[in-house]
Amino acid sequence: MNIFVNDYNDLCHERVFKKLSEIEKNGHLGYGSDAYTKKAKEYIKRDLKDEGVEIEFVGGGTIANIVAVSANLMPYEGIIAADTGHITAHETGSIEATGHKLETIEVPDGKLTADLIEQRVLSLGEEYHIEPKMVYISQTTELGTVYSLEELREIYRVCVMHGLYLYIDGARMATGLAASGIDVSELPKVCDIFTLGGTKNGAMYGEAIVIVDDDLKTNIRKFMKQRGAVMAKGFALGAQFAALFEEGLYYELGKKSFEASKKLETKLREAGVKFYQEPVSNQIFIEYPVEKIDDLARENMFEVMPLDEDNRVLRFVTTYMTTDEEIENLVKLI
Amino acid sequence: MNIFVNDYNDLCHERVFKKLSEIEKNGHLGYGSDAYTKKAKEYIKRDLKDEGVEIEFVGGGTIANIVAVSANLMPYEGIIAADTGHITAHETGSIEATGHKLETIEVPDGKLTADLIEQRVLSLGEEYHIEPKMVYISQTTELGTVYSLEELREIYRVCVMHGLYLYIDGARMATGLAASGIDVSELPKVCDIFTLGGTKNGAMYGEAIVIVDDDLKTNIRKFMKQRGAVMAKGFALGAQFAALFEEGLYYELGKKSFEASKKLETKLREAGVKFYQEPVSNQIFIEYPVEKIDDLARENMFEVMPLDEDNRVLRFVTTYMTTDEEIENLVKLI
Amino acid sequence: MNIFVNDYNDLCHERVFKKLSEIEKNGHLGYGSDAYTKKAKEYIKRDLKDEGVEIEFVGGGTIANIVAVSANLMPYEGIIAADTGHITAHETGSIEATGHKLETIEVPDGKLTADLIEQRVLSLGEEYHIEPKMVYISQTTELGTVYSLEELREIYRVCVMHGLYLYIDGARMATGLAASGIDVSELPKVCDIFTLGGTKNGAMYGEAIVIVDDDLKTNIRKFMKQRGAVMAKGFALGAQFAALFEEGLYYELGKKSFEASKKLETKLREAGVKFYQEPVSNQIFIEYPVEKIDDLARENMFEVMPLDEDNRVLRFVTTYMTTDEEIENLVKLI
Amino acid sequence: MNIFVNDYNDLCHERVFKKLSEIEKNGHLGYGSDAYTKKAKEYIKRDLKDEGVEIEFVGGGTIANIVAVSANLMPYEGIIAADTGHITAHETGSIEATGHKLETIEVPDGKLTADLIEQRVLSLGEEYHIEPKMVYISQTTELGTVYSLEELREIYRVCVMHGLYLYIDGARMATGLAASGIDVSELPKVCDIFTLGGTKNGAMYGEAIVIVDDDLKTNIRKFMKQRGAVMAKGFALGAQFAALFEEGLYYELGKKSFEASKKLETKLREAGVKFYQEPVSNQIFIEYPVEKIDDLARENMFEVMPLDEDNRVLRFVTTYMTTDEEIENLVKLI
Repeated sequence: MNIFVNDYNDLCHERVFKKLSEIEKNGHLGYGSDAYTKKAKEYIKRDLKDEGVEIEFVGGGTIANIVAVSANLMPYEGIIAADTGHITAHETGSIEATGHKLETIEVPDGKLTADLIEQRVLSLGEEYHIEPKMVYISQTTELGTVYSLEELREIYRVCVMHGLYLYIDGARMATGLAASGIDVSELPKVCDIFTLGGTKNGAMYGEAIVIVDDDLKTNIRKFMKQRGAVMAKGFALGAQFAALFEEGLYYELGKKSFEASKKLETKLREAGVKFYQEPVSNQIFIEYPVEKIDDLARENMFEVMPLDEDNRVLRFVTTYMTTDEEIENLVKLI
Repeated sequence: MNIFVNDYNDLCHERVFKKLSEIEKNGHLGYGSDAYTKKAKEYIKRDLKDEGVEIEFVGGGTIANIVAVSANLMPYEGIIAADTGHITAHETGSIEATGHKLETIEVPDGKLTADLIEQRVLSLGEEYHIEPKMVYISQTTELGTVYSLEELREIYRVCVMHGLYLYIDGARMATGLAASGIDVSELPKVCDIFTLGGTKNGAMYGEAIVIVDDDLKTNIRKFMKQRGAVMAKGFALGAQFAALFEEGLYYELGKKSFEASKKLETKLREAGVKFYQEPVSNQIFIEYPVEKIDDLARENMFEVMPLDEDNRVLRFVTTYMTTDEEIENLVKLI
Repeated sequence: MNIFVNDYNDLCHERVFKKLSEIEKNGHLGYGSDAYTKKAKEYIKRDLKDEGVEIEFVGGGTIANIVAVSANLMPYEGIIAADTGHITAHETGSIEATGHKLETIEVPDGKLTADLIEQRVLSLGEEYHIEPKMVYISQTTELGTVYSLEELREIYRVCVMHGLYLYIDGARMATGLAASGIDVSELPKVCDIFTLGGTKNGAMYGEAIVIVDDDLKTNIRKFMKQRGAVMAKGFALGAQFAALFEEGLYYELGKKSFEASKKLETKLREAGVKFYQEPVSNQIFIEYPVEKIDDLARENMFEVMPLDEDNRVLRFVTTYMTTDEEIENLVKLI
Repeated sequence: MNIFVNDYNDLCHERVFKKLSEIEKNGHLGYGSDAYTKKAKEYIKRDLKDEGVEIEFVGGGTIANIVAVSANLMPYEGIIAADTGHITAHETGSIEATGHKLETIEVPDGKLTADLIEQRVLSLGEEYHIEPKMVYISQTTELGTVYSLEELREIYRVCVMHGLYLYIDGARMATGLAASGIDVSELPKVCDIFTLGGTKNGAMYGEAIVIVDDDLKTNIRKFMKQRGAVMAKGFALGAQFAALFEEGLYYELGKKSFEASKKLETKLREAGVKFYQEPVSNQIFIEYPVEKIDDLARENMFEVMPLDEDNRVLRFVTTYMTTDEEIENLVKLI
């Protein structure tokens, strides 16, 4: 079976598992006050070239978004996001459940622009509008597209000008860095808060929330505790992120996943498939006839989404484990 | 170092870790739709002798409480709980953050009684009172005390009579079963929803929520997703619970932890210490002079809580890993 | 000054004020348990030809919407509404503040259709989607358009089929009834809950919430109390609604306001103005050159909304007090 | 019938009603941007001798509390209040419904003290505790007791020292001022936010929220709009408060109500009744045999609360309308 279904179908990378197997059997301090968590934070700060950030580890992507978005917003403050954003379309109203309205903007490719953000802010000046306070974007986006460093800078400039926090959801940040060519140390300069997703890049579970802005750091641990985001055995999270960041494994895996997607893209292009969205990173969307899907699914795992009566959108996701052989097997059948 | 600090200072039991190391490297279905999760649920239903319950796995105790309590309550409905309850005193207002008022009852030993519950319900009949809808108790309680089967039956009888759901927080259910002598298959008969805690009994992370009442099952997965309680790699949770419940490991560990606590209790009693709370399960609270704590702490890990100027309350927690030697070393120094 | 600014710029209709001046000086029972509130409810039930509905009076339109929408929804349930809906665009995220996501549908004229609702429901089947549970429409809409009885029936049919509640926001229901020709007694047959707005139709303050569906009646008073929607001197609300409904004043005022709008529409059409939205009820939107607005505003009160660089949208609202002279004065200047 | 049931059983004071009858028939600006609201704010600021405060008018006491307490608190922040506080015991969990935990303190007489507040704050230092941020007290309290100026100063001193906002719920502030002898201009010096209740002191409906602290002013109107607290016809609120404050009517009525209560207290004391709570202001609580209540209720309206098998607590509330005759009639029967 060739596996293109998603990037969270593996237990974890072997070096992450090895690290877990090597830590002390017991005697660890709880709630993230342990030595492994400390180490993991040091490695990440080193890579970010920024000692001033605060880093917190949580168990998954949705809870990471809840914490990053809602912890320090007032009840009348709202969030600007793309209509395809993960918090908009894939999390069962998780942000609204914390009491905040999303101001969603329709975009064709999953990407907000500085202009679109500014237009929306300027349209929200009445007493009966929420106070816009945060912009949510994701790198890579839910459609596999990627922001360039220049685009991020431009967006952040507009955010700063209008008193908005910028949050980058990095559930797929490892591939995002590889695809955009952005060095991780640029991130603290172009936003107020971001995540480094582990679950989709080698960890068994876990996302790192990196808080750059001082106001957003306020009592973040209390909010996390309140929402069930603090894990008792924080040291197990710490050990995984120590393994990922000690010697650059995190970036390596992102690069592998991205390179595999480039290979797949090239092969698919040669095979003449119609892309639903021009491929940029490790999520590749193609259009495909309904009647041929069953055949393809016999030896390949992938996601199918509605398109029209005769065709579907297929999503192929590559990971650090994707092999050349899997890619060839898939494309052959297509 | 002798470790009595808590029951979540270990990575996980070796058989749990072994199971994780043995599962397929990748290709797992996401969000708990995998084979391991299925197996784990089967094992638990078998032990409960109840095929009708719904079981969901989440990452930790606070998020388990949020899901169990709030998923299917209306905004005007409230929860009756002890003033020492975990949701009352240890979770940063997690339930209030979902919009619900706690009606707290002061109790000396962490245990609600059928009478106390009934009195409170009867006092809440006005338009300006919340509608009482759920009772929260924990087994074992936050003070280490334990409900007998008879007490649970009596409480549930009152709950049913007044249209209240009964929820048993089982973060320490394994020891609770051992200490109370209650068979796990009795649980679905004496409440509407309960948890089987993994984090404090051999899992790396994870709690099983067991839903008995049909109304409480409604759209529970949507609520979980909304609160960030659904883990992408649910199969890793499933594998851990499969390891714990396949052949009774869960109950075994609970028994070990309880037996260690009995040993410790006996030795402490012989040593003439003053118990702050009469010991029942694996949390033992004693009163101790401030000036002697530093000496004790040199070779022992434990928690210290305020009492009066000259004395503190020390909490010793035993686990499945506690050895006779550790107990002797500790008591010798006391 | 000719007043077209809105339909809530008067204190109240003289017969409403007279009723207030006539009630007992003191000795009234609180919180709506008084005789006037009882009377008011009887008059409305008589007009609705439905003794089974529950009626509650609250102080204003936004709090009426909060109560009608959120009182009996579970946290994972969401509401389908037009992008121009009052709860979507004019209430500072009031519904999201209760924790619920709005599923908004883009429409050109403020009106949802049965088809649009059904399409949206069918697209919401995943665990990561909210559970659609209510449809929100307004009569008249925020753009002055009006649903026909046939349209309401069709929408309600789809709602019933998919297990959705239908809520009609009747902040301008009096004009809505006049403009659509629907008899008020049809309302309980085509939705589950609706409001009869008083503030914009002769009351000093107050809206009647009429609850048809039994589930939606559950503990509605407790929810109202919780959200600050219960007024201590409910008898003052009751007296006003008694005045409005005892002898049909409510419908009379709606008719007057509608007839004035027809006159204004005819005159404006004759004057050759460009309507921004084809006029249907007592809100008339026209396009107008920026440079001529100051002149017009000297003797007329109206609202101005953005359109393009050279033009603005002007909104003229007629009420039961609008005179032929005011209409002629306005149109002359245009 | 002698009326002692509460202080909101009258429509409104005649001078308030006269003012309403005199304002322009229509053409008023909406949402509190009118001339009457402006005047009312000027009168109050004049009396407070403080031009820096922000004043907002809302329709009732519970919504006033929701706005005053929750508008500018972060989700992890909590409120310290007495167990008898209105927000604790009489508002169906209205504050919890905004997501905030109340830290309640048991007191015999409805009054918090500086010491009790400080002790509680000092006990709340853990990650699993909410961050205490506001103290709620009421003047007069729910048991009719009253804070002296010295007590308020002491409480505020502790609040400032620990970074807590102090909010005084003044639903009965008019009587509170009379009973305590505090001049209204002292209020902005001893707290961060307070209300001047109109509903229980001559208004048809309405409370003034006075915000002293600058942070608490932030976007207060947006929060009000979001919670349905902004009334479309704000001018009707403004006119009432203009009538109450233009020439000191507000304080006059409070004095009358207080003086009546002193008379009633003296007569009751002479009659040898047992007070349930030592009387201080216009709520007087006595203990009374169950079997004699029916007789008393034939000619008197009052509230009855549970006490023991043979006795009840009766509450007598005086108002600016209470006559000597009513008092004599009541006491004669007792």
